[in-house]
Amino acid sequence: MSDGERAEELIDLVEQNDLTGIRLWLAEHRPHEIADELSRMTDRSVMVPFRLLDKDRELEVFEELDSGLQQEILLGLRDTAFHELLEEMDPDDRARLLGEAPAKIATRALAGLSPAERKMTAALLGYPEDSVGRYMTPETVILHRDLTVGRALEVVRARGADAETIYTLPVVSDGRRLVGTITLSDLVISDDEELLKDLVDVLAPRARATEPVEDAARLIQEANLVSLPVVDSEERFVGVFTFDDALEVIEAADSEDMARQSGASPVGEHYVSVSVLRLVGARSVWLMLLIVAATLTVNVMQVYEATLEEVTALALFVPMLVGTGGNVGAQSATAIVRALAVGEVRVRDLPSVIWKEGRVGLLLGVMLAGIALTIGVLLVGFDIGLVVACSVIAICTWAAIIGSSMPLLARKVGVDPAVVSSPMVATLVDATGLLIYFSIARLVLGI
Amino acid sequence: MSDGERAEELIDLVEQNDLTGIRLWLAEHRPHEIADELSRMTDRSVMVPFRLLDKDRELEVFEELDSGLQQEILLGLRDTAFHELLEEMDPDDRARLLGEAPAKIATRALAGLSPAERKMTAALLGYPEDSVGRYMTPETVILHRDLTVGRALEVVRARGADAETIYTLPVVSDGRRLVGTITLSDLVISDDEELLKDLVDVLAPRARATEPVEDAARLIQEANLVSLPVVDSEERFVGVFTFDDALEVIEAADSEDMARQSGASPVGEHYVSVSVLRLVGARSVWLMLLIVAATLTVNVMQVYEATLEEVTALALFVPMLVGTGGNVGAQSATAIVRALAVGEVRVRDLPSVIWKEGRVGLLLGVMLAGIALTIGVLLVGFDIGLVVACSVIAICTWAAIIGSSMPLLARKVGVDPAVVSSPMVATLVDATGLLIYFSIARLVLGI
Repeated sequence: MSDGERAEELIDLVEQNDLTGIRLWLAEHRPHEIADELSRMTDRSVMVPFRLLDKDRELEVFEELDSGLQQEILLGLRDTAFHELLEEMDPDDRARLLGEAPAKIATRALAGLSPAERKMTAALLGYPEDSVGRYMTPETVILHRDLTVGRALEVVRARGADAETIYTLPVVSDGRRLVGTITLSDLVISDDEELLKDLVDVLAPRARATEPVEDAARLIQEANLVSLPVVDSEERFVGVFTFDDALEVIEAADSEDMARQSGASPVGEHYVSVSVLRLVGARSVWLMLLIVAATLTVNVMQVYEATLEEVTALALFVPMLVGTGGNVGAQSATAIVRALAVGEVRVRDLPSVIWKEGRVGLLLGVMLAGIALTIGVLLVGFDIGLVVACSVIAICTWAAIIGSSMPLLARKVGVDPAVVSSPMVATLVDATGLLIYFSIARLVLGI
Repeated sequence: MSDGERAEELIDLVEQNDLTGIRLWLAEHRPHEIADELSRMTDRSVMVPFRLLDKDRELEVFEELDSGLQQEILLGLRDTAFHELLEEMDPDDRARLLGEAPAKIATRALAGLSPAERKMTAALLGYPEDSVGRYMTPETVILHRDLTVGRALEVVRARGADAETIYTLPVVSDGRRLVGTITLSDLVISDDEELLKDLVDVLAPRARATEPVEDAARLIQEANLVSLPVVDSEERFVGVFTFDDALEVIEAADSEDMARQSGASPVGEHYVSVSVLRLVGARSVWLMLLIVAATLTVNVMQVYEATLEEVTALALFVPMLVGTGGNVGAQSATAIVRALAVGEVRVRDLPSVIWKEGRVGLLLGVMLAGIALTIGVLLVGFDIGLVVACSVIAICTWAAIIGSSMPLLARKVGVDPAVVSSPMVATLVDATGLLIYFSIARLVLGI
């Protein structure tokens, strides 16, 4: 990988204000690579290379950027360049940008658009945030079911150049009611005389413009579609949702799940450009809740303070036990959150999941108990070793059951399972695990 | 969502052996939905609905299944059906299935293939596992750069029906050397007389057949490509890697990262069908290493046993402190592992990442210290509360630095950053965090 070298180059060239060098660098890289480098630069220095881009590549690079950086660039552009850029953007990209931008930018932008583009943007902005409507493009070629293949190809050749996507073409009946789709490939390889209505895939999946965009993106992924036609409540065709937008939606959803799994809110911004305060904000809420919840562990320890004073050695194994319980619980929670996200497990599987994870936890506990016994006996003595080993078995089984059932219960009550984070499971298991540990200790040691 | 209802139906129908009902259900669902339901059934009961599928849908459903279930189904088929199914599979799907299948199935399969298909499969199997070569299809339409658009469209229309994908067409010079690509869309909307060499995108990205498939998949994702041409070491075109296969590769890689983040090896199998023993195997290795590493925490506690005997109240806050340190470390590690996976952060960013995360940890520590102080004062007293609060600040800062730098250091020495799991960070932070806690305690309490 030459990542390292390449990165050094553009940043260095910009720092040295080497305009010829920057132009050369830009000519040698593809839009997504350029966007990647720009995302790593400070807001002000971005404008230099951006202004040096060819007009036609400027748009491609711009569409690859985060909306935060897009807004910065728009603010740095003069009126003509500002309006040209927005006019040429794909309607769905533009709608999403303006949906997130401050009113100042949005108003200036809408005012400068041509009437046709303004109408399209306003229509998309009418759909709820995170709905398919915000992510679809109305710019495609619509074919009537009564056309022949030959005629349809003529239509595509005449109008296709203005469309954002023509890989999957919507086939409609009167009143733009969606009948199904035909792929450009099928159109090209079919006989000119055939009728679309005999070729159209009527079982082709479709999405409602108002449904959550993540559902539609997962459908594209599962059914391996290049694009998905979108309809309104009366089954009229209104746009196309394409695989590249679906990929971005899924990537963002997976990043969010990962962040939530560690007890942080998703920041949805490039790591290099996100501020320290935003990171603190995204992470602090759960940490504060968790440290308050951890008061429970202090309470449990207090209940057994007399026992601890009598046998101080019991305290030695507290970090190891709460750590192990947290680890086992986190594994189970992660496995189930992921299985839910990709659809391998459903809420109704709760009993079988608990049964499976309970056995996994028990077996893991038995294996780990062997190690814990050895450590306990070597470092302290047989009695304590036995207490620790028995506790490991009970805590691991319990942690696996808690870790696996909590995401399913969350989904059942309509909460995103990913908020059942590993830290949350760990904190829950900590307090209960200590109860188990001290109960076993009193039983075995007879105190 | 009607997920719940649908699931009940097919399993119930199979249990009741209601053949008419099963046929009806199959006719009403799409291949990926059928595959999804089959994955949730026991091996034996899968054969009933599978045999009832139409011949042409059988293949589509089969290609959507995990290779474990594919092998089960192959074993359940009679020779004719077995060979028909394999003969019709896409060459890349077939190569991957045979690459993973036991020799018994692979030999029987290769023997029954037609010479042309056998040759293709053998060629793909010649590439290393997890290389692009295993995931590409050789079945496309290759265009010579000297063709006109009109002539090229004729070629596509004549040969396209046998190809797996024709959305992006490779354009070659003599000796199949790849010049670049042209999309089917561009071909359709261009004038018949234009020459391909004037239209071909020579900057179009390409992949080497031997390079890791995950790199190629990320490239497809970043550059929003429908497909990527694949070349050999002499730049000769050998196949096409398509977006749907790329999506599967990315999904699998993300699942693996998530599993590793919780300290488990990826099982790469449907959760419902994976056995308890495989789950135990995938999770036990790290847990055993971690419990051994946790011996360090016992050692640290032993060093301060005298202090503990003197002030037992110090023990009360041990679970809360190690928990908080683990949580902060896990958040930082998760954020950096993800940023590395999607390319937002690189190894050379190590100093700036530490600087950023150190400040995040410090700020989080200060916020949490306020809460810890309150809890400590209320439950025990001011002295202990002060010790706990100071420790929280130091431990959070330290945990954020450790959690963020370890994935970067892993990448630097060529190890997958995802193996730097949250449990691993937590265990490391536990032992060092206790050292910090007891040092502060002795300083503040003067013991």
